[in-house]
Amino acid sequence: MLRVGLLGAGRIGQVHAVNIAGHAKSELAAVSDVFTSAAETLAARYGARAATSDEILADDGIDAVLIATSTDTHSDLIERATAAGKAVLCEKPVDLSLARAQACQAKAAATGRPVMIGFNRRFDPNFGALKASLEAGEIGRAELLSVTSFDPAPPPVSYIKVSGGLFRDMMIHDFDMAGFLMGAAPVSVQAVGSAIVDPAIGEAGDVDTAVVTLRYADGRIAVIKNSRRAVYGYDQRVELLGSQGLLSAANMLENTVSRATAAGVASAKPTYFFLERYMPAYLREWDAFVTAALEGTPMPVTLQDGIAALALAEAATDSARQGGRPVAPDLPAAVSPEPVA
Amino acid sequence: MLRVGLLGAGRIGQVHAVNIAGHAKSELAAVSDVFTSAAETLAARYGARAATSDEILADDGIDAVLIATSTDTHSDLIERATAAGKAVLCEKPVDLSLARAQACQAKAAATGRPVMIGFNRRFDPNFGALKASLEAGEIGRAELLSVTSFDPAPPPVSYIKVSGGLFRDMMIHDFDMAGFLMGAAPVSVQAVGSAIVDPAIGEAGDVDTAVVTLRYADGRIAVIKNSRRAVYGYDQRVELLGSQGLLSAANMLENTVSRATAAGVASAKPTYFFLERYMPAYLREWDAFVTAALEGTPMPVTLQDGIAALALAEAATDSARQGGRPVAPDLPAAVSPEPVA
Amino acid sequence: MLRVGLLGAGRIGQVHAVNIAGHAKSELAAVSDVFTSAAETLAARYGARAATSDEILADDGIDAVLIATSTDTHSDLIERATAAGKAVLCEKPVDLSLARAQACQAKAAATGRPVMIGFNRRFDPNFGALKASLEAGEIGRAELLSVTSFDPAPPPVSYIKVSGGLFRDMMIHDFDMAGFLMGAAPVSVQAVGSAIVDPAIGEAGDVDTAVVTLRYADGRIAVIKNSRRAVYGYDQRVELLGSQGLLSAANMLENTVSRATAAGVASAKPTYFFLERYMPAYLREWDAFVTAALEGTPMPVTLQDGIAALALAEAATDSARQGGRPVAPDLPAAVSPEPVA
Amino acid sequence: MLRVGLLGAGRIGQVHAVNIAGHAKSELAAVSDVFTSAAETLAARYGARAATSDEILADDGIDAVLIATSTDTHSDLIERATAAGKAVLCEKPVDLSLARAQACQAKAAATGRPVMIGFNRRFDPNFGALKASLEAGEIGRAELLSVTSFDPAPPPVSYIKVSGGLFRDMMIHDFDMAGFLMGAAPVSVQAVGSAIVDPAIGEAGDVDTAVVTLRYADGRIAVIKNSRRAVYGYDQRVELLGSQGLLSAANMLENTVSRATAAGVASAKPTYFFLERYMPAYLREWDAFVTAALEGTPMPVTLQDGIAALALAEAATDSARQGGRPVAPDLPAAVSPEPVA
Repeated sequence: MLRVGLLGAGRIGQVHAVNIAGHAKSELAAVSDVFTSAAETLAARYGARAATSDEILADDGIDAVLIATSTDTHSDLIERATAAGKAVLCEKPVDLSLARAQACQAKAAATGRPVMIGFNRRFDPNFGALKASLEAGEIGRAELLSVTSFDPAPPPVSYIKVSGGLFRDMMIHDFDMAGFLMGAAPVSVQAVGSAIVDPAIGEAGDVDTAVVTLRYADGRIAVIKNSRRAVYGYDQRVELLGSQGLLSAANMLENTVSRATAAGVASAKPTYFFLERYMPAYLREWDAFVTAALEGTPMPVTLQDGIAALALAEAATDSARQGGRPVAPDLPAAVSPEPVA
Repeated sequence: MLRVGLLGAGRIGQVHAVNIAGHAKSELAAVSDVFTSAAETLAARYGARAATSDEILADDGIDAVLIATSTDTHSDLIERATAAGKAVLCEKPVDLSLARAQACQAKAAATGRPVMIGFNRRFDPNFGALKASLEAGEIGRAELLSVTSFDPAPPPVSYIKVSGGLFRDMMIHDFDMAGFLMGAAPVSVQAVGSAIVDPAIGEAGDVDTAVVTLRYADGRIAVIKNSRRAVYGYDQRVELLGSQGLLSAANMLENTVSRATAAGVASAKPTYFFLERYMPAYLREWDAFVTAALEGTPMPVTLQDGIAALALAEAATDSARQGGRPVAPDLPAAVSPEPVA
Repeated sequence: MLRVGLLGAGRIGQVHAVNIAGHAKSELAAVSDVFTSAAETLAARYGARAATSDEILADDGIDAVLIATSTDTHSDLIERATAAGKAVLCEKPVDLSLARAQACQAKAAATGRPVMIGFNRRFDPNFGALKASLEAGEIGRAELLSVTSFDPAPPPVSYIKVSGGLFRDMMIHDFDMAGFLMGAAPVSVQAVGSAIVDPAIGEAGDVDTAVVTLRYADGRIAVIKNSRRAVYGYDQRVELLGSQGLLSAANMLENTVSRATAAGVASAKPTYFFLERYMPAYLREWDAFVTAALEGTPMPVTLQDGIAALALAEAATDSARQGGRPVAPDLPAAVSPEPVA
Repeated sequence: MLRVGLLGAGRIGQVHAVNIAGHAKSELAAVSDVFTSAAETLAARYGARAATSDEILADDGIDAVLIATSTDTHSDLIERATAAGKAVLCEKPVDLSLARAQACQAKAAATGRPVMIGFNRRFDPNFGALKASLEAGEIGRAELLSVTSFDPAPPPVSYIKVSGGLFRDMMIHDFDMAGFLMGAAPVSVQAVGSAIVDPAIGEAGDVDTAVVTLRYADGRIAVIKNSRRAVYGYDQRVELLGSQGLLSAANMLENTVSRATAAGVASAKPTYFFLERYMPAYLREWDAFVTAALEGTPMPVTLQDGIAALALAEAATDSARQGGRPVAPDLPAAVSPEPVA
């Protein structure tokens, strides 16, 4: 049984609390939040106790912490939690600064404690099935990857201003997906972005629509499309062309009903947002963390993966600012030790 | 808060236990089973106590019971539970005997306690969305209903022998679906059935493949297709032709991945069986029961609905035995007071 | 080169004229019609001559005739054309009277000339691919067939009155499809029909919505659904459940565009009517006739097939008039010498 | 009636010959080819005469020519045909050299004769329906365009060597599609390409897999993906994200049959190559040309459109050679006078 302290009782913390409490091999021991009452309410729902993050990190009865606090606290908390001997699952991104994230990794690695980064999409059953097909050789060698990732609506501009920008805040998931599926880091990053959804996003120095192209050393290519606005719902798709075929993961739909009338055939929209689409992914993600933490096996998504994605986000941010000039990402080593066959 | 006693700790009882324990407005107080250890194991998992059904029915601290025992006990338990003042949710079918079910209804009605029958498919989000479209007038007046309902594989012949036959055991869900969508009871039932999946099913006096046609007083028609074997998974679809269009509810698939190769395009199968397909339906069903029980509003599926479906099953069984001769079902009154416009 | 006389210059005759004139191995020599000017116009378009049907049948330079006249002339023309030594392709149905059709067959058979009946749907690429999959063993043994066949809108009541009724006029295609796919004739026919699309159709003694169930000697079952009105277009689908899987042929759509908006996802309707849907089928049908006529190989659809479908239509008409009582069709022999494995 | 001379009797010339001869308002008068026997065979099939291109251009009885010869002859023939007073439909590309194409345009424009470039995909019913939806305002303002265009298999390397390279030979269609849908020319072109399908293509100085990103002055973005190999067939899709939704045009499939078995659900592949996919487009393209030529209305695709696509191909070729550096295309004026609203 893994005794868990949850740091952060906001929207995503609440999703994790359900999974921690409902898992047969984990229990929710304590919850902290900068808003004490939020921690108390969430803790009460699952028979846990409210505490400060200091108390949780100091509690020898707690084996692991899940970090679901604001991004600017991630690096510090990872360092302190691993120093305190905890296994860590930290929400993405590791940090908005690549240098800070790398320093964090060095400290965490020195403790020998395992750290997993919460790239939930790796655990989506659809993307998982796509990857399984790839690894089973169903399309031969991967050659051209396309990731489509559109949010239903942009966040408030106040959030945009502290988010680190679209590439670090939103596309970072897609950079990780590229690493997950291509099994390597690209040698070149090109980014084109515009603020055409909302001029206020442009005034805040960010873009809301972007295309990034990644080129790998062996000639393979990946292209990522992001938009902050898809009025029909959360649009999350992957296509991978290989030497022997094409794999595609389509959206989950709200239901399977179609309506054929004189006006045409109407069907359901994609599920609205990440809470609807990725609920099964969060559950599978937690199960993977618990299993690795209890059995001492390698974490399925590492701090190194988090840094790799961040490095691509930084390169894309640079490229976009330079009108799309190709930028070589600052990546010290291979993302993944196991190249895709 | 609704305090619930669960009668029956088998496969379906376990599904209900999760939902009872997880619902914000219900708690699992006690579990009974003819196998005491099954009750104990299940009760322990949710912090409930194991008990006998007699103890549960006698416990004034229990507000409602969920009957998930074998079919031959349903009528007795409904009668005893309502007499003891409990609200009741009973798995389908009410009974294998229409006369016995009608007697049960009379006794239960005399107590004034609410009884809901567990026709889970009414709570499937897809069928629910289809019905909502119908009620919103999207296809005008309903004219021709088709229900496809195939199991992945036949049950053991030992089960077939005590099941009451395909029409009472399996197609009863589809008879209820017809009532749910057509909002009336048919005046004529014709059934054709064969044992072509497994001759042993025929030797046991049952069929494994059947088509039933229902004709309504106003000329509308419904057709139901059943097979005990669809090797590709649980096939549960509905189509409804109306004066202004067609509504269709397709299967849920295991995932959204497609694989295009030189051999063709491959996609995922339907979810394997009712536990996969109808898990969301069971959750919504329980929520509907809790809400009606706590608020004193009418149950969304009544004992009368259970009897109506059973009457159609009996008529179909008769028709099939007579080579498909039309049979008028023994239905005392309208299934539903609100005809579909 | 097959020199062809076309009898009938109406809507369907015009479809055939294009194919006759465009085929590399046939030429349109002459066209007749009760409206002389229609024959002249059509003939002129393809460099053929207008003539009477008597002149065409008497012309030794004409090898084959295509009969696209009104149904009441089919039997006579088949008899006269075969007696005149022509190969014949005759539109369905052979006749509205089963007895008359059987007499026609006897006379035509005595001449030794080949007669093909124009069941165009057998040549639809989709239904053809479905049959090829069946014959390749992809779903094992066929067990339960479903044919959906809805017209976009009912014909005028004046046409209904002389049509022979829905079962002979419209469902006859589906009876033939059942024979095509099941490779046998049923032993029992049950029909339920209503006039709910248009009461005037009921007043004319016909139905506009019907379900027919066919039972085969070996226990297999087929169900056919017809409606005279599907406002979203021509709905022509087949599903076949077998011991190892399910084959489905869906509709052809007007285009492949989908439109995802806040209101949902909209896609194109099925092609509007038989001219749009079955144009490729008419072309393939003509090619099959030309090949068989020139090479002396057996016709792919025989006069016997036309009679078999008519016998089922007659049985269905009887069954519907008797409230759905099962009727044994008057079928002298097997529809097809090659049973489906 | 438009009397037409066809220059070129190869594969694509044969497609056009069918349409010219079959159109109610055009007739095929003469056919030329560098292989005289090819011209004779094709001419004979449609009752036309074989001739040299000089004879055709000198024939005052010929109103229009269709240029389906090798690319290196296009500019010369356009100049000579317009000088001779013919209306011209010329296959793409205008030329491999942008400068030569611009010179050709100047000469042709001076004659006042209409020239249409054969960008057949504009006439595909699916892309046409997508554009109609866009123009009807169904997705608001276009923001992010994606064009997927994969060939089933690479051409011989001998062809690659004289093709002008992937961007001029293959992606030129997609550059035109971008202009067709975005209604403007981009200000920046970035291209990434690799030879990973076949190293021999790389040795020949070309790429076989490429991604190009186009940025428009108003911030809109288009991305084009090309591969010379999609083993599952000709993959031709368009997606367009707008402020109010997403339009998608999917592939045409070989048939509508699906096969559900224990192994999964299998469906048909896309149609194999451009002759299958775009046959309806060639027919509609010819009809548009005939209509414009006879009625004196503007050609739906102009020589200017052909030059615009070529300019993007040239810019992409430059960008790819410079490792993806953004290149401003050499475009003198707006592609289209009517901006998309």
